[in-house]
Amino acid sequence: MTNANQLQEWHELAQQLRVDSIRCTSEAGSGHPTSSMSAADLMAVLLTKYLTFDFDNPENPNNDRVIFSKGHASPLLYSMLKAAGVISDEQLMSLRQFGSPVEGHPTPKLPGIDVGTGSLGQGLTIGFGMALAGKYLNEVPARIWVLQGDSETGEGSVWEAFDRASYYHLNNISLIIDVNRLGQRGETELGWNTQAYAERARAFGWHAIEIDGHDLGEVDRAYAEALTIEDRPTAIIARTIKAKGYAELEDENGHHGKNLKPEQTEAAIAELGGERNIRIEVQKPKAAKPAAPAKAQPLELPHFEMGESVATRDAYGQALKALGAAQPEVVGLDGEVSNSTRAKFFAKTYPERYFEMFIGEQLMVGAAVGLQALNYKPFASSFAAFLSRAYDFVRMAAVSRANLKLVGSHAGVSIGQDGPSQMGLEDIAAFRAVWSSTVLYPCDGNQTAKLVEQMSDRPGICYLRTTRMKTPVIYDADEAFPIGGSKVLRSCDRDRLTIIGAGVTLHEALSAYDRLKKEGILARVIDLYSVKPIDVETLYQAAHDTEGNLIVVEDHWSEGGLGAAVLDAFTGTDSAPVYDGPPLRPIKLAVRDMPGSGQPAEMLHGAKIDADAIVAAAQSLVKQPVGSSV
Amino acid sequence: MTNANQLQEWHELAQQLRVDSIRCTSEAGSGHPTSSMSAADLMAVLLTKYLTFDFDNPENPNNDRVIFSKGHASPLLYSMLKAAGVISDEQLMSLRQFGSPVEGHPTPKLPGIDVGTGSLGQGLTIGFGMALAGKYLNEVPARIWVLQGDSETGEGSVWEAFDRASYYHLNNISLIIDVNRLGQRGETELGWNTQAYAERARAFGWHAIEIDGHDLGEVDRAYAEALTIEDRPTAIIARTIKAKGYAELEDENGHHGKNLKPEQTEAAIAELGGERNIRIEVQKPKAAKPAAPAKAQPLELPHFEMGESVATRDAYGQALKALGAAQPEVVGLDGEVSNSTRAKFFAKTYPERYFEMFIGEQLMVGAAVGLQALNYKPFASSFAAFLSRAYDFVRMAAVSRANLKLVGSHAGVSIGQDGPSQMGLEDIAAFRAVWSSTVLYPCDGNQTAKLVEQMSDRPGICYLRTTRMKTPVIYDADEAFPIGGSKVLRSCDRDRLTIIGAGVTLHEALSAYDRLKKEGILARVIDLYSVKPIDVETLYQAAHDTEGNLIVVEDHWSEGGLGAAVLDAFTGTDSAPVYDGPPLRPIKLAVRDMPGSGQPAEMLHGAKIDADAIVAAAQSLVKQPVGSSV
Repeated sequence: MTNANQLQEWHELAQQLRVDSIRCTSEAGSGHPTSSMSAADLMAVLLTKYLTFDFDNPENPNNDRVIFSKGHASPLLYSMLKAAGVISDEQLMSLRQFGSPVEGHPTPKLPGIDVGTGSLGQGLTIGFGMALAGKYLNEVPARIWVLQGDSETGEGSVWEAFDRASYYHLNNISLIIDVNRLGQRGETELGWNTQAYAERARAFGWHAIEIDGHDLGEVDRAYAEALTIEDRPTAIIARTIKAKGYAELEDENGHHGKNLKPEQTEAAIAELGGERNIRIEVQKPKAAKPAAPAKAQPLELPHFEMGESVATRDAYGQALKALGAAQPEVVGLDGEVSNSTRAKFFAKTYPERYFEMFIGEQLMVGAAVGLQALNYKPFASSFAAFLSRAYDFVRMAAVSRANLKLVGSHAGVSIGQDGPSQMGLEDIAAFRAVWSSTVLYPCDGNQTAKLVEQMSDRPGICYLRTTRMKTPVIYDADEAFPIGGSKVLRSCDRDRLTIIGAGVTLHEALSAYDRLKKEGILARVIDLYSVKPIDVETLYQAAHDTEGNLIVVEDHWSEGGLGAAVLDAFTGTDSAPVYDGPPLRPIKLAVRDMPGSGQPAEMLHGAKIDADAIVAAAQSLVKQPVGSSV
Repeated sequence: MTNANQLQEWHELAQQLRVDSIRCTSEAGSGHPTSSMSAADLMAVLLTKYLTFDFDNPENPNNDRVIFSKGHASPLLYSMLKAAGVISDEQLMSLRQFGSPVEGHPTPKLPGIDVGTGSLGQGLTIGFGMALAGKYLNEVPARIWVLQGDSETGEGSVWEAFDRASYYHLNNISLIIDVNRLGQRGETELGWNTQAYAERARAFGWHAIEIDGHDLGEVDRAYAEALTIEDRPTAIIARTIKAKGYAELEDENGHHGKNLKPEQTEAAIAELGGERNIRIEVQKPKAAKPAAPAKAQPLELPHFEMGESVATRDAYGQALKALGAAQPEVVGLDGEVSNSTRAKFFAKTYPERYFEMFIGEQLMVGAAVGLQALNYKPFASSFAAFLSRAYDFVRMAAVSRANLKLVGSHAGVSIGQDGPSQMGLEDIAAFRAVWSSTVLYPCDGNQTAKLVEQMSDRPGICYLRTTRMKTPVIYDADEAFPIGGSKVLRSCDRDRLTIIGAGVTLHEALSAYDRLKKEGILARVIDLYSVKPIDVETLYQAAHDTEGNLIVVEDHWSEGGLGAAVLDAFTGTDSAPVYDGPPLRPIKLAVRDMPGSGQPAEMLHGAKIDADAIVAAAQSLVKQPVGSSV
């Protein structure tokens, strides 16, 4: 039994966490006090007795990690940080003010907060990634604590994490489900049926403990029990009361995401025993020594011979394997298609640093966010089309200021016979519209290898698009391909138009160049391998030199891809554009009709993004007199 | 016991399905014969004895529905259609040929195929939507049969469907899991542990039956048993062998997605007893009479007074409620945020046609696809940010040629204090890059109502973006807002620049107009409420009239949104652009830095998309002499 003094101390802290959650949301005039109050007892015990964290050194790999998957309970999290002396009361009270790091939902701007949350159902996937690192990579005794709402167990991503966490025997995760019965709009499906949650967790291979989340002794015993489980993760299913501690609102629907009114604030604080200023000294972790990473070897990227035929996905796989030798912090993830994406080359060579995510792209990206938070470099791959499954996770990874390396294979109609369900045709649009993103689209093996190398150290969300079919190697293995650059492959001083392609369409552009040349039409050809950031100077020069005649050709829907990136380069961002060449006469060749199945060449032709289409567009441009169009 | 003759008949049919699956994939030179062979016995019994479907009238609401969630087993599906006399052997053998409706993965081009599949883990969500319709809307005895692979149970969306299907007591679903142990790359997590699948299904409230999927009698009894379960859906967990029937490849890894070689083809067909031409007369459904829909009332859209302050999300809710009276086929769905999106107005008035999806956006979109396949009109709403969770489902809905009405609220930084996790800032980019899509972004209540009305009959994927904060009503309730149109709100013959906004930024544009006018700078102001399709003519006229000076201002990332749509309008699609006015001098004001929390006005100002930013950009444009830029 926990002793009475201890229980009283925890109770006092819990009440302080509630009072502070109310105070800061009332001050802000918005926020989620009631969702914070339900979990206050759970967090008071955690903070005082179980959590080990060195706030002077948040990067210490021995630190436990706390993830508020229910990010809307951020007032509770900030109140914990105040109790731990990490932020001042003044900072707490700046909640939701413009410019304050104490944002409406958690973002990694404060010590102890590694990631952004607030899109529900993501925290456990991130914790899963951290737990993989702790158990299999640095092998530290640190524990991953995830506080999850009951509503958000409705997100499928949670069950992807449940499933793989038991598959990987991640006994270093303690998931705490705050079953306060009420979602944003009304009762959850399972209400207070904690048994149902426990049965589901057990069926997915977890140890499950049902408790009263306001019985501090039970909370204590559950945490202690979880530490003893050696072969599987533990879920603590805590029955709680929303707005616990302020009788007027306890278990009342309709108070999610609402601050208390001034008179309620006063009454609630009084009922909770008034303001306190308890300061908790959070235990520092024991100085365990993380497992030494493998010794770094010199980087030996694959080299391909000019003229050889190599699929860029193959080059990716080989480059990642090479990178694995040079950078022990590189970790491989793939969603059950490593034989197609070629992540398998890495997986076979470095099985200790490769984790199969099975079919679950959301989990894969969430895990990658967790791994990068602990300073690993996760490369995660799937078909470009299927990465769209994880779009919300990528969006949130940007909020987390994560450094991710994502690779989408089988892009575009050029995959051929498998049909549109397997074709990534919106991936460039989606990834360009992510904050901090880099979008790369190589056309040959050597270029791919060089870009993979640069991705590794690139901050933000890095996306590489690869091609299923083989394409000719056109660059020497020694060529450099800086991110933000491009390659001018054909050029002379009589160029009448510019053809811009990347990946599979670059080869169509080269073929169109040859045909146009026979007709006496000279074209400049640009390989736009770096779609974001984009090589503005080279584009401006080309527009200058070719009377503004630009043809962009891409194996992607017509919205948001290569063509859009080129047009953006000629657009002012807050004042007048700096381009001062001849007026643009742009043509965008892109996929506009829903494709079916067929051979790659048939598909490119059918979509009007092959050499035939480029030649026709070029003829149209040079025939139409300059000055009669844009 | 099933009689021996019957068993033999089923066996012969199953062997035919296997042989045909091999024949068509060998002819195509690609495809998934082995994944088809594992499920052939399951499908032979279904086709012969249990399925009721009128192929002469695929729209008959009494028809059962079959969904191959494991879309890569399409050869089996096509072989079933051949056996049912729906397609000829010649059509079957056109598998994966350019132009053939017999595509690599199923698309709704053949009778009996309602939706596209091939992105795994989606079929059950679609079947869930169909089953909701059958149980709660038209109340027909039709049954939904979903064939699912074992690998794809790794997708979280499957568990969203498991969860809500039992919550809604959908005893009209029979899910068949083809546990052939092998995924694309290797063994699944659970292998042949059918007990684990069954325990998970039961924990999620399903009836579960474990069988040997090659024992035709067991298959028969399982189907029969499922029909007797009255309060919950049934999962039949069938242990099967990949490539069953061709010993050389049975249960061998490394043969997923690979056609048989010519000599293997010959040997396999021989081993399976050669080609057959069995023709099955699929039972037609009994002529049950679907429940009569409610009587349609005249449409009475909400009217708002000019100058009133109304959030477009409120107008959406009221318009949807009005539409509900006029169109009994309208169905409401929301992901546990109906109080925020205002879907609650519909939910309260038409509870019999509103289905709470709880927190599961993938399920919501999958269910909508299922409902529209049965000719309902689902309006599905969530925060714009959280619809990104379902992006793969939206992508696949386009492959399904679905007619969806999706509504994203809380768009942009203007939501204020909740912070970036809750801000939809990539939604326009994402939805524009979906085939068949329409993207609408109203700025006032009356406009919203008129657009909601038009969405209802609009084919394809329709997306409406709404705003959290109240905005002034600037249009009369009688004004028309055709999709594809725009409104010129300020205009004279001395306009020196054009300001283009939509939604919340339109009001900033109007405010900037007033300030610029005081400085003697006259601006044209365009309300671009229809982002896709876009009003090309009005944009061209404005560019003509204002020396190409265009400022686009949007509460969205700078990629793929309003600004991108405007630039696209001036770009040629396959030949030279038709715009022949003065050179464009475009400026795009959009969100470029990661926002935090703050008041809406602070957020708009901080992102430089408010009237201040527009005024500064306008001054910059008119100061810079024409001819010195684009």
